[in-house]
Amino acid sequence: MSSAQEHRRAVVLVSGGLDSATVLAMAVDEGFVCTALSFDYQQRHRCELQRAAAVCQSLGVSDHRTIVLDPTPFLGSALTDGGAVDSGTSATDEHIPDTYVPARNTIFLSMALGVAEGIGATNLFIGANAVDYSGYPDCRPAFIDAFEGLANLATKVGVQHQSFQVQAPLLHLTKAEIIQRGVALGVDYALTSSCYEPSAQGVPCLSCDSCVLRAKGFAEAGHTDPLTEATS
Amino acid sequence: MSSAQEHRRAVVLVSGGLDSATVLAMAVDEGFVCTALSFDYQQRHRCELQRAAAVCQSLGVSDHRTIVLDPTPFLGSALTDGGAVDSGTSATDEHIPDTYVPARNTIFLSMALGVAEGIGATNLFIGANAVDYSGYPDCRPAFIDAFEGLANLATKVGVQHQSFQVQAPLLHLTKAEIIQRGVALGVDYALTSSCYEPSAQGVPCLSCDSCVLRAKGFAEAGHTDPLTEATS
Repeated sequence: MSSAQEHRRAVVLVSGGLDSATVLAMAVDEGFVCTALSFDYQQRHRCELQRAAAVCQSLGVSDHRTIVLDPTPFLGSALTDGGAVDSGTSATDEHIPDTYVPARNTIFLSMALGVAEGIGATNLFIGANAVDYSGYPDCRPAFIDAFEGLANLATKVGVQHQSFQVQAPLLHLTKAEIIQRGVALGVDYALTSSCYEPSAQGVPCLSCDSCVLRAKGFAEAGHTDPLTEATS
Repeated sequence: MSSAQEHRRAVVLVSGGLDSATVLAMAVDEGFVCTALSFDYQQRHRCELQRAAAVCQSLGVSDHRTIVLDPTPFLGSALTDGGAVDSGTSATDEHIPDTYVPARNTIFLSMALGVAEGIGATNLFIGANAVDYSGYPDCRPAFIDAFEGLANLATKVGVQHQSFQVQAPLLHLTKAEIIQRGVALGVDYALTSSCYEPSAQGVPCLSCDSCVLRAKGFAEAGHTDPLTEATS
């Protein structure tokens, strides 16, 4: 692989959702040789990882890696200080908070940075969005900028060349604008999953916040959602 | 738990080595209620995790959590772009570089941040040292400062209170100074492991860089290493 090619390698966080599918298509369209990265953290809906794989395949990205991450150590402790530990305690859905991997984007980007350093990629793509997720600290421009700065302090390549870039191309886009970009790039949104509570077969509920946001985005974008079209 | 107590909770990275054992003793001595955090990333020497557990027990830290991290996704890819994947390829010791989790301290601190956010701790302790490990970008003061800044942008607690602190109390100490601090705090260094190539029984080789550095540190500190004393 030539040096020029190496500088065009990217690691792209891919969840199986609409946003990250669009980001992957953007990165491919920009000519990056992409390594897609997903996380298996005992999601309720395993279909997400299958969707991520399908998205990668449809966009011709053959290097798709999944990092297994046990969320148990991240759960709030039931331990009393110095007290006895209930050996029967285990992580269940009931004990897992909604945002059950705190510091989530920091962890995901750190992993992406590790993968990138290993393969000689200097671009990290993430589908963070500050419009619909303004309440999340780690979806804001200041966080993205700070992580990029950290990446260039934390790694040998970064220190030597200040070359790491964190690309968050959806940061300031509305859902409709994201969908328009994706449709223009030929993203097959039928492969993606957005629902918080899909059926066992992966059929979206159409009533959760995420489904509502998606439906509104497609309506505003003037497109039909192939996912709900297929299931309606 | 009272609010005052919550502010005295800390997450301490504990590897089973001399430095992190000292850091844990320092944190306990400062009155922090500590959650110790170790990483199981298929280390060659599983004894490290046992040493970490022993260190925690000896210092009265009952909340010791281990995060399992498969290093395979971090390895350099043998994939040719778009080419065939050798399904027989697997990670072996031969393929794992010396620093086989790139961006290591970034990943470890991110995980510690996630754990801390989950339990309401705002202090993260790490045994980074800029004296003996000056070549490592992620052992330098600038990195530690940058991660602290990131932590206060990346989390709800951080954004609201700017309260996350990354404590690296060994940063500017020599190995001898670290040992002197630990001995004064009653750290049982017989429980720790420093050797890169210990025997199957965990006996240090006494010739690798890490063993040499440790021996020099004990000599300069004017103490006998209980580990080598016990095995000599």
